[in-house]
Amino acid sequence: MTAEFDRDVAVTATGEGTYAADLSPGWVVGGGVNGGYLLAVLGRALGGSTVHPDPLTVSAYYLSASRPGPATVTTRLLRESGSTATMAADLVQEGGHRIAALATYGDLGSLPDDVGTTATEPELPPLEECWGMGLAPPDFRASAPPLLSRFDLRFDPATAGWAVGQPSGRGLIQGWFRLNDDREPDPVSLLLAVDAMPPVTFDLGRMGWAPTLELTVHVRARPAPGWLKLRHETRNLAGGMFEEDCEVWDSAGRLVAQSRQLARQPRPPR
Amino acid sequence: MTAEFDRDVAVTATGEGTYAADLSPGWVVGGGVNGGYLLAVLGRALGGSTVHPDPLTVSAYYLSASRPGPATVTTRLLRESGSTATMAADLVQEGGHRIAALATYGDLGSLPDDVGTTATEPELPPLEECWGMGLAPPDFRASAPPLLSRFDLRFDPATAGWAVGQPSGRGLIQGWFRLNDDREPDPVSLLLAVDAMPPVTFDLGRMGWAPTLELTVHVRARPAPGWLKLRHETRNLAGGMFEEDCEVWDSAGRLVAQSRQLARQPRPPR
Repeated sequence: MTAEFDRDVAVTATGEGTYAADLSPGWVVGGGVNGGYLLAVLGRALGGSTVHPDPLTVSAYYLSASRPGPATVTTRLLRESGSTATMAADLVQEGGHRIAALATYGDLGSLPDDVGTTATEPELPPLEECWGMGLAPPDFRASAPPLLSRFDLRFDPATAGWAVGQPSGRGLIQGWFRLNDDREPDPVSLLLAVDAMPPVTFDLGRMGWAPTLELTVHVRARPAPGWLKLRHETRNLAGGMFEEDCEVWDSAGRLVAQSRQLARQPRPPR
Repeated sequence: MTAEFDRDVAVTATGEGTYAADLSPGWVVGGGVNGGYLLAVLGRALGGSTVHPDPLTVSAYYLSASRPGPATVTTRLLRESGSTATMAADLVQEGGHRIAALATYGDLGSLPDDVGTTATEPELPPLEECWGMGLAPPDFRASAPPLLSRFDLRFDPATAGWAVGQPSGRGLIQGWFRLNDDREPDPVSLLLAVDAMPPVTFDLGRMGWAPTLELTVHVRARPAPGWLKLRHETRNLAGGMFEEDCEVWDSAGRLVAQSRQLARQPRPPR
């Protein structure tokens, strides 16, 4: 059986560097379709455009909010070497240009196996002590954005005070992540994972949607099977915008992806 | 008198969205022209292509090493709103496509003045206690890359052990930065500043040149006049690559720019 994620990010080649996608309403959040899901759709099209199997780095500029329904992805090769390909990609819908992206693909399986990472793995309480949607009141679940039903996200209670009206003010949210259907992580699903959490501004008491201007993700290794750990942080909230850094750690304790985005701050609630 | 930096990053419009540049040999380092300098040249061309004066975010993919001499920058508008413009840009020389970039421009002067930054300003010893090129032996200075003569860079001795054969192994380099001719910092010069330091891998005992695959910079405020503080760090060195984060702090203590790049590790010396 094909997992939900794979059905929803599928693209069909319709010409040289042209792909048809159907953006699923299941990934809607805030004023549009989730940016990480869109990145995974782009990632699929890019992967179909080169012999190099894995995204190494993808930079996306979000031009307008995507809507569920048909979309076209076009890709263009800029440079290919023996080990990498750099490409441009655009996601377009009737009504507008949604995303412009640049990406370099390569083979994560062929990289040397040195690991000198000094970042430290987040310490999370066990799954059963973390807060998932299952704990939310039924009326919250009924009105929650569809996005939150696409995966199991279990927040570290120490960074989830915002869910009960007590944001910590630190600008840090972390938790466990797993796609529906026990779909195991791979490099393309990491493109989604880096943008699956709520905006880190929730932890600063700003509960609104935070539109992304730009998001760059580096995929550094193929993730081991199992639950992922996500860690979102902001260190520079100023001038109506904020930077949000995400780290994705796999079940083997490897930092498999890092992303940084620049987003607009949600407006303070009135 | 026009400052050296402004002379060297100047571009001349030669058509709709087309600019002629002359890459100065003064910015050569390693196997090519410094990536931050190239970003500033691109920044100038992009600034000439929109009414929005300042770079907010620029993402550059380095396709091949640039050489001193003539270059052409082309820009293409992707989306313009009342407050921002998102553009694509390419830097091309005879012999190859050097850089593909995406960027969003806006007006840093019009942003709200809230600052909720939680990152902390680097504590540096006073200028006169830091290590500049003036301290290097004359034969080192004579053979140093031209890049190092374009600005005054004063390293915090606590993070400059690599200069005397004693890298700390932490992956951190910080110091003071000022352009020649006392040219005051502005948003375009920050595009250079984020890539002006030696690779942070020097502090890990790897002294070679580290080619950048991708670099994204967020410019968050117009810098105050005076010396800048630069802080370079890597937290994820693995698989033959490393991420390098740069923070730029101005003389008023504001975090004015953040960058992250993915680069290839220098090969270990034989």
